[in-house]
Amino acid sequence: MQSFLEQLRTLVGADAVVEGEALAARASSYWDPAPLRALALVRPRTSAEVSAVLKLCHQHGQSVVTHGGLTGCVDGAVVNERDLVLSLERMTAIEDIDTVGRTATVQAGAVLQTVQDAVAEFGLLFPLDLGARGSCTIGGNVATNAGGISVIRYGMMRELVLGLEAVLADGTVISSLNTMLKNNAGYDLKQLFIGTEGTLGVVTRVVLKLKEAPVSVNTALVALTSFEAVCDLLKSLERTLGGNLSAFEVMWGAYFHAVTEPGWHRPPMSRDHAYYVVLEARGADARADNLQFMTALEQVLEDGMVEDAIIPKSVAERDALWSIREDFEAITAHDPTFLYDVSLPIRHMASYVDEVKSRLQQQWPAGRCYVLGHIGDGNLHLFVSPGEGDRNLHPLADEAVYQPLMPLGGSVSAEHGIGLEKKSWLELSRSTGELALMRLLKRTLDPQTLLNPGKVFDV
Amino acid sequence: MQSFLEQLRTLVGADAVVEGEALAARASSYWDPAPLRALALVRPRTSAEVSAVLKLCHQHGQSVVTHGGLTGCVDGAVVNERDLVLSLERMTAIEDIDTVGRTATVQAGAVLQTVQDAVAEFGLLFPLDLGARGSCTIGGNVATNAGGISVIRYGMMRELVLGLEAVLADGTVISSLNTMLKNNAGYDLKQLFIGTEGTLGVVTRVVLKLKEAPVSVNTALVALTSFEAVCDLLKSLERTLGGNLSAFEVMWGAYFHAVTEPGWHRPPMSRDHAYYVVLEARGADARADNLQFMTALEQVLEDGMVEDAIIPKSVAERDALWSIREDFEAITAHDPTFLYDVSLPIRHMASYVDEVKSRLQQQWPAGRCYVLGHIGDGNLHLFVSPGEGDRNLHPLADEAVYQPLMPLGGSVSAEHGIGLEKKSWLELSRSTGELALMRLLKRTLDPQTLLNPGKVFDV
Repeated sequence: MQSFLEQLRTLVGADAVVEGEALAARASSYWDPAPLRALALVRPRTSAEVSAVLKLCHQHGQSVVTHGGLTGCVDGAVVNERDLVLSLERMTAIEDIDTVGRTATVQAGAVLQTVQDAVAEFGLLFPLDLGARGSCTIGGNVATNAGGISVIRYGMMRELVLGLEAVLADGTVISSLNTMLKNNAGYDLKQLFIGTEGTLGVVTRVVLKLKEAPVSVNTALVALTSFEAVCDLLKSLERTLGGNLSAFEVMWGAYFHAVTEPGWHRPPMSRDHAYYVVLEARGADARADNLQFMTALEQVLEDGMVEDAIIPKSVAERDALWSIREDFEAITAHDPTFLYDVSLPIRHMASYVDEVKSRLQQQWPAGRCYVLGHIGDGNLHLFVSPGEGDRNLHPLADEAVYQPLMPLGGSVSAEHGIGLEKKSWLELSRSTGELALMRLLKRTLDPQTLLNPGKVFDV
Repeated sequence: MQSFLEQLRTLVGADAVVEGEALAARASSYWDPAPLRALALVRPRTSAEVSAVLKLCHQHGQSVVTHGGLTGCVDGAVVNERDLVLSLERMTAIEDIDTVGRTATVQAGAVLQTVQDAVAEFGLLFPLDLGARGSCTIGGNVATNAGGISVIRYGMMRELVLGLEAVLADGTVISSLNTMLKNNAGYDLKQLFIGTEGTLGVVTRVVLKLKEAPVSVNTALVALTSFEAVCDLLKSLERTLGGNLSAFEVMWGAYFHAVTEPGWHRPPMSRDHAYYVVLEARGADARADNLQFMTALEQVLEDGMVEDAIIPKSVAERDALWSIREDFEAITAHDPTFLYDVSLPIRHMASYVDEVKSRLQQQWPAGRCYVLGHIGDGNLHLFVSPGEGDRNLHPLADEAVYQPLMPLGGSVSAEHGIGLEKKSWLELSRSTGELALMRLLKRTLDPQTLLNPGKVFDV
């Protein structure tokens, strides 16, 4: 009788199975250059091949970890030496772009930026956008319900997926490639595969919702004295800019101060404000949108809601403003720095950040905590640097950041997912009843626990 | 030993159990005045009582049908004499409105319009809107994933629910009352209860996503010569009006002609155009938005995309335009008239309607078919009147309307759901694999088939 690997090679061809040195020549992830160690890596070319591979795994009780762009932040695609890696790197086709219905049907291995660029040629926008756009895949975006910088206007990946095709643990192909905005014919099964981190099935094809591309971009950096003013500003702009507000990115003063230290970014205004916000609005009419943006900004300056404001005068200046928000090497240069991604009701954010800082202060008097976030989405990112060189301090920092979320109904993961990294904290955000229901779903769809085993929760 | 009903009365109090004449004094539904016939109707006051009732039903193998506003169009809440009706009529509280985070937490029995009005007092908008707003409940909106007239801008109910609490068939309360736009901590369990028509659990509380209320409304009625022009117009306005386009309601010429017959609506323009569209845009700046709207309209007139256009000069004139679209008594006065709600890719709509009309024509030469729709959402409504007085013709009409959807990847239900009415057609829109997975979910969450039995599909 043939071994599992022999059968696998027979099934998909030897060139589709990567082993030995070729496997070890691959990095473990985007973040971890260590050689990839696994039983093997298989690269199917079609959904039918994915199905055949999973059927074989099902027969052999073989565990499978699906790989996309490997840019995830929570160890959600980590493998061990007994796992088979299922890579979608050969399934990258953009199968259809419907310019009337505004949909794109793509294979799950397609890179986000490739899809963005392909639809842009037709004057269309696929609005999901995040730093990893050049490496992350649509399948990974689905599996993690990716967020990013445009959520305030366009929603998360879940809201941008109209249909999908997924393969279950036993190899059954579930083809649910709906292309309409409205479809209430029975259960919306795609939800089982969005944000479940590859634990309930392997996403193979996706129908994406597209928008007409906006033509105008207006950007500003503003400074404020209190978090109350930040909330007022958000509310005011949601009203005055209507549907055009596309980014509202808050930086706490300490963050701004740190990334504009000499040698890092040039500060475009005083470094001593309490809060800074990068604003962006996108619309359909360059002249009218600019007028609307400037009028809204003048109003909030006049009302005293905003202390100072800078409007970039060129694309280079705009990029420089954004790089203050997006390029935080000045902070991660401190080793170790632990990155957090939490969400909580906006009204509790100021007191939450104070509470976390005070807990960290007690632990590590020389430590630092830098905060920024997509606050319109309820999402904060925290950088915690204990000021001591020991990565084993991570669990202590976790405690200080996660514990205060519980009484506020906050979440230990806004957009990154749970993976392995946050697994021990999941029950802080979810009730016993919820966890039992998640386990029931997992046991029902993957009774042998073969798909991405050990991730999110233990069965 | 006490009977089931005795135990039920002991559990929630005799006043919470409606039986006999009091039960028969209630109508079967919003549409059907026949007396409600059921084992009894129970009106719990709290989630804990809903849980206790379902636990008791679970012990006794008692079937349960949840009732909200009973305005559904597909016999989704029909009961038989052995079913217990679980009415949420006493759970109508608006528990919290968060003006900073823009959320409302409400009990499932709250009426949609009551919620709309309550948040409007804070300058906020709950954007779901449909004709039944004064009767339908939030719980029913969740269970059916309601759509309506604002989907093109704000999405369906699924996109407007941040969190919910539901009770499972065995009485377990699943509290998943997330209030944040972003929360990727584990599986998104609320999806199990949205659009599953009460077959997987009873929704008891809901966290709704709110928006800042828009201040401007611009409306127009336009006429076009071809469906291609209709598609071009939609695309053009999505671009020029950006995020402001809030309605794009197409009427085929025959529909417009019929509802503007003498004795019905006054025609505001020639009745002989091929297509009519009611347009609406909502924004944040009355003056600028009006300018944007008029400029966009002038452009499409100049381009020849649109043949004629009417701008209402008063609220009364605007209401009159909308009533042409919303009040179709001239059509339903023909008895019988069968109403359909389908979705399909926009690019196939014109040929689909031609195909349906030709099939109907062959069947009933004197019959009529009137079409209108939220085409931006891929959604068409068809009124089919065979021109003969026999309601038993319904299945024949179904065939003519539903069969041509299959090769186009269309759906037999865009927004109304499946209920009992469309059950036999579900497999036309969903694959064998999908149906098997739906049944697996149902058997897992409701192994005794106690919740809304027989609806959507047979287990």
